[in-house]
Amino acid sequence: MSNIEGLLKQHGTPEKEVYLDWENGSVVDKDVYEEMRPFYLERTFGNPAITHHMGWETLDFYMKAKTRIAKPLNVDPQAIALTHSFSESNNLAVRGLAKMNKKRKKIIVSEVEHLSVIHTAKAMFGDKYQVEIIPVSNDGTVNLDILQEKIDSDTLLVSLQTINHEIGTIQPVKEALEVVKDKDDSIFFHTDATSAFGRIPLDYSKVEVDLATFNSNRILGPKGIAGLYIKEGTKLKAIYEGQLSVEILAPDVENPALLAGFAKAVEIQFERFDEINIQAKKLRDKLLYGLHTSIERTEINGPSGDRRAPDNVNISFLGCEGEALTVECSMNGIYVSSGSACTSRVLMPSHILTAIGRKPEEAHGSLLMKLNRLNTEEQINYVLEKMPKVISRIRSITGGIEL
Amino acid sequence: MSNIEGLLKQHGTPEKEVYLDWENGSVVDKDVYEEMRPFYLERTFGNPAITHHMGWETLDFYMKAKTRIAKPLNVDPQAIALTHSFSESNNLAVRGLAKMNKKRKKIIVSEVEHLSVIHTAKAMFGDKYQVEIIPVSNDGTVNLDILQEKIDSDTLLVSLQTINHEIGTIQPVKEALEVVKDKDDSIFFHTDATSAFGRIPLDYSKVEVDLATFNSNRILGPKGIAGLYIKEGTKLKAIYEGQLSVEILAPDVENPALLAGFAKAVEIQFERFDEINIQAKKLRDKLLYGLHTSIERTEINGPSGDRRAPDNVNISFLGCEGEALTVECSMNGIYVSSGSACTSRVLMPSHILTAIGRKPEEAHGSLLMKLNRLNTEEQINYVLEKMPKVISRIRSITGGIEL
Repeated sequence: MSNIEGLLKQHGTPEKEVYLDWENGSVVDKDVYEEMRPFYLERTFGNPAITHHMGWETLDFYMKAKTRIAKPLNVDPQAIALTHSFSESNNLAVRGLAKMNKKRKKIIVSEVEHLSVIHTAKAMFGDKYQVEIIPVSNDGTVNLDILQEKIDSDTLLVSLQTINHEIGTIQPVKEALEVVKDKDDSIFFHTDATSAFGRIPLDYSKVEVDLATFNSNRILGPKGIAGLYIKEGTKLKAIYEGQLSVEILAPDVENPALLAGFAKAVEIQFERFDEINIQAKKLRDKLLYGLHTSIERTEINGPSGDRRAPDNVNISFLGCEGEALTVECSMNGIYVSSGSACTSRVLMPSHILTAIGRKPEEAHGSLLMKLNRLNTEEQINYVLEKMPKVISRIRSITGGIEL
Repeated sequence: MSNIEGLLKQHGTPEKEVYLDWENGSVVDKDVYEEMRPFYLERTFGNPAITHHMGWETLDFYMKAKTRIAKPLNVDPQAIALTHSFSESNNLAVRGLAKMNKKRKKIIVSEVEHLSVIHTAKAMFGDKYQVEIIPVSNDGTVNLDILQEKIDSDTLLVSLQTINHEIGTIQPVKEALEVVKDKDDSIFFHTDATSAFGRIPLDYSKVEVDLATFNSNRILGPKGIAGLYIKEGTKLKAIYEGQLSVEILAPDVENPALLAGFAKAVEIQFERFDEINIQAKKLRDKLLYGLHTSIERTEINGPSGDRRAPDNVNISFLGCEGEALTVECSMNGIYVSSGSACTSRVLMPSHILTAIGRKPEEAHGSLLMKLNRLNTEEQINYVLEKMPKVISRIRSITGGIEL
């Protein structure tokens, strides 16, 4: 028996289970699974680049699927490149653009970007790129005045998230885009819309960003596929090499089954857009303010109301340690993650919570809970009922001392 | 109606269909599909890096799945890195190694490597790497004498395929490895075993390569996942950046559903290894020599007998043009691809056929057919019956002139 098997046995299976860790993994919709079936099992398994009947069938499907995905973004389907993950999309946007434009040497990103943006920008230091990090307010909103100050004639790219993945801050993308383009409209603007796609309206024909990352798994589509919107005229270089095919920016990425699932997930999320997001906001506020009210010494991370993502709950429980907290939650069937360094096997503190001024002891006791269309009010009631006991128990174990 | 819809309508649906384009796309096994189901629809949708019950369940599954995949290679499961595709594995091997070892500046590859190896090596020219291309014989076998000559104290890496993807040449990997390590055992050796995994025995505890690429889709596992075996002590740098997790060399790659399918496909292929490959060889020889015997002016590309991959048929029909050929095959329900520049929407001639000395007119009329455990003898009989008429018709259209 492995150590993990022992751990699982010791833990046992909770009577009731509420999954709120959608940030880190998810099932797919039943309808999404069904949509993938023929591509896994039946006839349309050609490569869209090959000239035979199955290849053409696949190409036909491929173009229609891209049309379905492009529709809610209000862009030309041909402006959508497919990748394997939102991280790859972010890498492709930043690195692929820098490879095509070697004259300008400065990349500007916010302090709270996903690490696939920050690390990619920083990885270019070796190639003589300069990375300028823009600070955020204590609710995670980027400082536009500092952004404006930092833009200069050497600036190639500004990359700013649409919604922060940890604390749910909706960034002023439209305003930031205006700041950038007003100063110099040859500067490129990328937005990582991974956490925003399907949560807030996005229209890239009106808000004319040059590059936008979006993904399938966050809206109950399959993992292993994501998108990058590339405005006409924006040239990128592929970040890895291979046999060229329909997707020229990601060799070997063509995957009819995952694309079918992605397209279906997009349709479901946007057909039910208002219903899903109104319900999410209701559950979000119930959970966020419910926990904040019923449990002492808590701090809400991120903004309130319409400036917060509909699906995001992030709260710090002072006097708690993150790993103990997620494990105790798990014993009660509540599956969440934490911004603490110790709660994942990744030994890295949350740079987001640090950026909004949280002290280590506040970041340590933080929990991230996301809401999805599969969550119910009854589940949230269960979480609200259990969490005061979870927190009491953790605080009693640590002796109530300030960590 | 799009152009492609029109094309499909004009083409019609053939009465009988035989799919032989496994090189370019495939369904998955029914059992593979079933294996993926719970990961798509049910409870194990955690991220293996997260500390809660579902995360541990996923980690437990993850380690067991890697054990299932590592078994036929006879290596430590922890030596297997997962990627999204064999192209990514090849990129990671070549580029990831070069990024970690900046002193030596020479990379040696064979002339018939997949473009994801050749292009990656060449892409490093800008970073002052020297790429040495080793020629092959007229059956595609690498020249070991020239390999030995080209190795010097500046050589970082030798990359040699195990089986060529187009013409099925089984390379003398063991002998090449000895040549390299005898000269300097600090030179790294990578083999792209994408077309060999599941087709010929591979044992990396005996043939101690440093790096080996292998994949899921070629053995009826899902697309979107592949592997790279990395011998203990071989250090690579990730080729793109992101939030680190269980798979440190490919951020955001963790995909329990695809991994479940991959592991199942490996089990099926290796449990039935002898049966599958004996049957493939029988059908291969029936098809290869059947076409060669019954149709005039044909040339077999690649070696014969045990030096040829069990699943590979590649033959040139002189006086035929590739696109016309694959389309005429398709009208008869026979789905194959060609080494001609014109038969895919990728405007690139087959560098493999050029490397073995085929003239443009020979490469133009070449067809690649692969055999898979889903193909039957009855299907091969059908292909053998139809092909003489297909070739006659194409030759009559082009007026029998030499192209």
